[in-house]
Amino acid sequence: MSEKKRLNVGLVGHRFMGRAHTHAYTDVTLFFEPRAKPVKHTLCALGDDVPRVASRWEFSNWTSDWQDVVSNPEIDIIDICAPSTLHKQISIAAAEAGKHVFCEKPLALNLPDAHEMLGAVRDAGVTHTVGFNYRKVPALAFAKRLIEEDKIGRIFHFRGMYSQDWLVDPEFPLAWRLREKDAGGGSSWDLGAHVIDTARHLIGELEEVCGFKTTFIEERPVAVVEDGLYAEAGDEMGEVDVDDATSFLARFENGAMGVFEMTRYGTGHRNQNRIEVYGSKGSLIWNGFEEMNNLYYYDRSDPSGEQGFRLIQVGEAEHPYAGNYFPAGHIIGFGETFIHEVLDFVNAIEAGEPADPSFVDGVKAQEVLLAVDRSAEERGWVSISEL
Amino acid sequence: MSEKKRLNVGLVGHRFMGRAHTHAYTDVTLFFEPRAKPVKHTLCALGDDVPRVASRWEFSNWTSDWQDVVSNPEIDIIDICAPSTLHKQISIAAAEAGKHVFCEKPLALNLPDAHEMLGAVRDAGVTHTVGFNYRKVPALAFAKRLIEEDKIGRIFHFRGMYSQDWLVDPEFPLAWRLREKDAGGGSSWDLGAHVIDTARHLIGELEEVCGFKTTFIEERPVAVVEDGLYAEAGDEMGEVDVDDATSFLARFENGAMGVFEMTRYGTGHRNQNRIEVYGSKGSLIWNGFEEMNNLYYYDRSDPSGEQGFRLIQVGEAEHPYAGNYFPAGHIIGFGETFIHEVLDFVNAIEAGEPADPSFVDGVKAQEVLLAVDRSAEERGWVSISEL
Amino acid sequence: MSEKKRLNVGLVGHRFMGRAHTHAYTDVTLFFEPRAKPVKHTLCALGDDVPRVASRWEFSNWTSDWQDVVSNPEIDIIDICAPSTLHKQISIAAAEAGKHVFCEKPLALNLPDAHEMLGAVRDAGVTHTVGFNYRKVPALAFAKRLIEEDKIGRIFHFRGMYSQDWLVDPEFPLAWRLREKDAGGGSSWDLGAHVIDTARHLIGELEEVCGFKTTFIEERPVAVVEDGLYAEAGDEMGEVDVDDATSFLARFENGAMGVFEMTRYGTGHRNQNRIEVYGSKGSLIWNGFEEMNNLYYYDRSDPSGEQGFRLIQVGEAEHPYAGNYFPAGHIIGFGETFIHEVLDFVNAIEAGEPADPSFVDGVKAQEVLLAVDRSAEERGWVSISEL
Amino acid sequence: MSEKKRLNVGLVGHRFMGRAHTHAYTDVTLFFEPRAKPVKHTLCALGDDVPRVASRWEFSNWTSDWQDVVSNPEIDIIDICAPSTLHKQISIAAAEAGKHVFCEKPLALNLPDAHEMLGAVRDAGVTHTVGFNYRKVPALAFAKRLIEEDKIGRIFHFRGMYSQDWLVDPEFPLAWRLREKDAGGGSSWDLGAHVIDTARHLIGELEEVCGFKTTFIEERPVAVVEDGLYAEAGDEMGEVDVDDATSFLARFENGAMGVFEMTRYGTGHRNQNRIEVYGSKGSLIWNGFEEMNNLYYYDRSDPSGEQGFRLIQVGEAEHPYAGNYFPAGHIIGFGETFIHEVLDFVNAIEAGEPADPSFVDGVKAQEVLLAVDRSAEERGWVSISEL
Repeated sequence: MSEKKRLNVGLVGHRFMGRAHTHAYTDVTLFFEPRAKPVKHTLCALGDDVPRVASRWEFSNWTSDWQDVVSNPEIDIIDICAPSTLHKQISIAAAEAGKHVFCEKPLALNLPDAHEMLGAVRDAGVTHTVGFNYRKVPALAFAKRLIEEDKIGRIFHFRGMYSQDWLVDPEFPLAWRLREKDAGGGSSWDLGAHVIDTARHLIGELEEVCGFKTTFIEERPVAVVEDGLYAEAGDEMGEVDVDDATSFLARFENGAMGVFEMTRYGTGHRNQNRIEVYGSKGSLIWNGFEEMNNLYYYDRSDPSGEQGFRLIQVGEAEHPYAGNYFPAGHIIGFGETFIHEVLDFVNAIEAGEPADPSFVDGVKAQEVLLAVDRSAEERGWVSISEL
Repeated sequence: MSEKKRLNVGLVGHRFMGRAHTHAYTDVTLFFEPRAKPVKHTLCALGDDVPRVASRWEFSNWTSDWQDVVSNPEIDIIDICAPSTLHKQISIAAAEAGKHVFCEKPLALNLPDAHEMLGAVRDAGVTHTVGFNYRKVPALAFAKRLIEEDKIGRIFHFRGMYSQDWLVDPEFPLAWRLREKDAGGGSSWDLGAHVIDTARHLIGELEEVCGFKTTFIEERPVAVVEDGLYAEAGDEMGEVDVDDATSFLARFENGAMGVFEMTRYGTGHRNQNRIEVYGSKGSLIWNGFEEMNNLYYYDRSDPSGEQGFRLIQVGEAEHPYAGNYFPAGHIIGFGETFIHEVLDFVNAIEAGEPADPSFVDGVKAQEVLLAVDRSAEERGWVSISEL
Repeated sequence: MSEKKRLNVGLVGHRFMGRAHTHAYTDVTLFFEPRAKPVKHTLCALGDDVPRVASRWEFSNWTSDWQDVVSNPEIDIIDICAPSTLHKQISIAAAEAGKHVFCEKPLALNLPDAHEMLGAVRDAGVTHTVGFNYRKVPALAFAKRLIEEDKIGRIFHFRGMYSQDWLVDPEFPLAWRLREKDAGGGSSWDLGAHVIDTARHLIGELEEVCGFKTTFIEERPVAVVEDGLYAEAGDEMGEVDVDDATSFLARFENGAMGVFEMTRYGTGHRNQNRIEVYGSKGSLIWNGFEEMNNLYYYDRSDPSGEQGFRLIQVGEAEHPYAGNYFPAGHIIGFGETFIHEVLDFVNAIEAGEPADPSFVDGVKAQEVLLAVDRSAEERGWVSISEL
Repeated sequence: MSEKKRLNVGLVGHRFMGRAHTHAYTDVTLFFEPRAKPVKHTLCALGDDVPRVASRWEFSNWTSDWQDVVSNPEIDIIDICAPSTLHKQISIAAAEAGKHVFCEKPLALNLPDAHEMLGAVRDAGVTHTVGFNYRKVPALAFAKRLIEEDKIGRIFHFRGMYSQDWLVDPEFPLAWRLREKDAGGGSSWDLGAHVIDTARHLIGELEEVCGFKTTFIEERPVAVVEDGLYAEAGDEMGEVDVDDATSFLARFENGAMGVFEMTRYGTGHRNQNRIEVYGSKGSLIWNGFEEMNNLYYYDRSDPSGEQGFRLIQVGEAEHPYAGNYFPAGHIIGFGETFIHEVLDFVNAIEAGEPADPSFVDGVKAQEVLLAVDRSAEERGWVSISEL
């Protein structure tokens, strides 16, 4: 390993995603042999706890100014887990400084920004990726392989249902994820971006959409303290200006029908993100992170009378990513999906090839989100190509 | 029993539904004590096998002319399991003859017909019911009770997903269920009518809908033999003029969001009709006839850390209908839902009260179906009240 | 149908099993075409309600003396749903009168009695069957077929776990099922008889067993009222002299290992009777009557990486019994298993062939039960052949 | 962190378990705040790849002589992932050198050795733990808490079923896990040790057992290459001298009944280790590592008619360990159980308290394994206290 190339990472953000990415940089060489070794060079974040966290996470350096990271010639990769409002600025600066960029989703707060970011990384010729970690779930990567091998045939239906339930409590404070200016959107952006990317990845491009958005609880106590996902309510009430739930119908370019629903009011589902694909030769169902390692596969070519959905535990040597951990039957968790992101990103950098997914996928997801927003306003169908 | 009132039944139709209703008339007094005893008086159907079937099913008489049944003064109930094209004619004649009417769904081939039928039974003052047997599934009847007891609270989401897969085979012949003139519609009418009635029953009236319809396989070999659900393909090809799959978004009058999907291309699902309800106090999931006796219930008032969806096996003494069969833990089947329909219908007749469901529910379902059709054509939202 | 042979049935017993058998005689010709039509001739039971029940169930006659039934020359079949204490006497008398005999399980209160009963039906040359209705569950009949087709290969393991939970309540009264003289045994006899028959049916004969029996609650309030499964507690306490739970290990003649557990203290399981079979080519899991229509099948010949337990919904045209009811995806219930028993019994009578199962199977099950009892007493292994 | 105490770890072994422990030392400070920071000081193993692995896993030093590690005064913890044949020697030497000892299971190859090891660590006054990582699964740690809070009440039944299927293939080579001298035993030792420890942890001590052992395939091709779990078959055949499958009945000191089955022939189950507990107030089911984050809990105090097994996703803030990772609904994997072992071990060292589990638990498990072996030989019950 010692003779291997090293890639110094500057990570911006030290909350939920910051930790998830740190975990990935830490563990990737334990389970995989990437073409280069990512090194935890500098942690950049705001807050008194940054030095302590940097030490605990074993970053060699820390700073509270992201420009320090971008301008540091020792650093090869800028990893952006900062608030969405900073994605554009940091990405473009990083690209201009010749750094490879790993940006969390959603890529930008609006489509023009996303295009500008894509332009910047393209112009700079750096490698870029966006945090659509569903593609890195072994079960979904295996689903993709089955579709590519034509095991599913012509696809008729895609269903994507993403339910969380943390807003059912009316006392939950109005914090950044409930403010349009900070989050870009509500459930549709936060949860929808993932489902849309998964749909595109598995099925292909969407042609047109027709959506509906709702805010069930329009006033909430304004947060007086906010720290990552944590927020504390004050006495004042404020108006929620993002959607609580969004559903939309879609037609894919290949003729498949799509039904999407994203909600933060799916009582009882902390984080269910169910994906269903029905085709002429078979079907696939993935039950989300709550049942992350399982893929249900129906094969129409099984003998008559013996057909049924098979519960495949995606952890065998044959399966993408999963075989590198433990013997079959010992599951991996959500955290490992970030290891796979880092693995593929580092390998793309070293191979000089585009990463999968890239900012292009970030832009495409944003196009669909915009079309959904517009269709909800106009109360009709919106074609992606006519945006 | 002998002193109990008897209600003579004239049943029109001897295929799938004819047999299901016959089973109900046969078994209702084995498991329940209805206020009157339905008697299998006359079976009416077309075909050489009618005498044999009538004997096997133990009807006292048979005929091939439905007018004989309607005009027979001995008969109290006309039960219509005939093709949908005959529903209107027979219902109205039966009502005019003073018979109580049990009509299978969908009530009519279009909304004006449905209204006319409702007018006829109302004018005649007879008791009327329509075959929405989901209401009679113990798990769904229990779901209704939990909602009425405010265990679910304010309802945020309704999802109804009805998947069958018999049309995935492109060789399946173009028979009556694929012809608009005979069936009224495709998946939306056949499957959607049930989901819509369940939604109305559990959640309340729909305010507006926005739908999308597709026909995946537009040409099929024309059936040369048809007999109930059975059909045999010939050499000639014909054009399918109904939808293979329909999805629609909805807003309920109480503000709940609805997502509906009905398809005959849900590969691997012979008959999955999943119903999900999410509310401020709890949630309910029913997985359809494939898992008919189970209800998943999430109670937000369970202690923190001990919350989860409970699998309630709806077969206890406390549960609607189910307690009358076997000790808890011995499931009942699809056939028993018709027993409950007959039980409630007969009791309504004797009590002189409206049946649940009634032709009113048949009309309401038809309104929604029409709104979905129109919204799919107009590619926008259609309000039910503006039809 | 009218020209078909009729078989007059005299049914002894009008509680849980009496009704289940009546249901079967009533419905068998609705769904199947047996070689003869069973006719509800005479209901025999004790109690004031017998005339009313006979009328409600549509028996032509009733009596409170079983000897009337046995001696009635019009009657062809004696069906014994009476308390276990009467099985022997009625069976032998029926056989001697030349009647075909359908006796509920357990066949007898002890092995010598069972042998005597078998001798009587053999001497009389009548057709005989015993109420092991698991064999008639479509999913298990299909499991049997898969095993016979060598889809499972050499069998390594059988697991049979039968859990009910009605005795967890210490106030449940000491009624007949908790008295050895009336029931023969506790959980081992009531539940174990079914599991043992299923094991023999699927795997083959057991060679030796080693068992353990427990009574968790040794004193209960003595029942002052008893009526079928219903019992009402009085003030006096009495000692339970049967087992609450029994587990045993087994070796089958073909070398397979067996693990059995039967309990009335399986809190939360009203009636779970899980069967698992593991072999060199595949595996089968049936989750009991709570999930009666499903069979989980694992096929080792599926492609590597695509293997998994398939959930087969046993309700297709290809499946035993199930195809005769409704289109695939519409489940049947516990009650229908009795229809299949009656169907096969009537057909065996008409064909002049032994019924499946027969009293031989009743005797064999009783041998295993005895071996388990003895092994629990002797605290060691007991060979079936050395009983 | 920098001011925190550091504990230098010498890890012996670099295969499956070696990597799992390395992962734990690497990640523990990412997700938890242990009282001291474990430092990857020295990796000790045999093989040409040791330097490369040490570098990749970021150990500061490596050696191929375990005595180097034990005698190194810089090292605080000896972690033994070496073959079972070395457990005793290394443990005792480590204890005598005053090191804290983390030894993988099974503790020893026989009971006297286990006692000797326990004596050594006790005499040395070092902290000791054994690799029963089931205790560290959040779902099982939560199950333990529910039992301690008397939510389950008096316990009637324990079932532990551990199925793997890697020996179904007759070509799988005869390697160390199939040789008594290297492994101590077969399925019973490898899998049984875990189930027995879980049973003791949740229910209490076992009083007596009665077991049965089988070797289904007695001859296998002898391995010519062996490397951790990997083995390659040669041409020569050899005799397997350990059990392929073991089942046993048990009585716990508190009167609960136990049924255990361990097999490597559970076709279709790569690694299913199902645990069921039934009590007077509730029940618990854990479906093993394949469904590691879920706990099914049945609460008898739920309202009548609303009772059912709840699927609790053990990943909330309230749950042991799980709350330290991601927001609820994002599962963790098998690897994280080792993090919890390290966390608790390090904290025990710093607190000067016994670790949970300790070598005492290793000895106790070994006692039960011995009793099972003896009971299988003697074909009868063996009391643990009379060993």
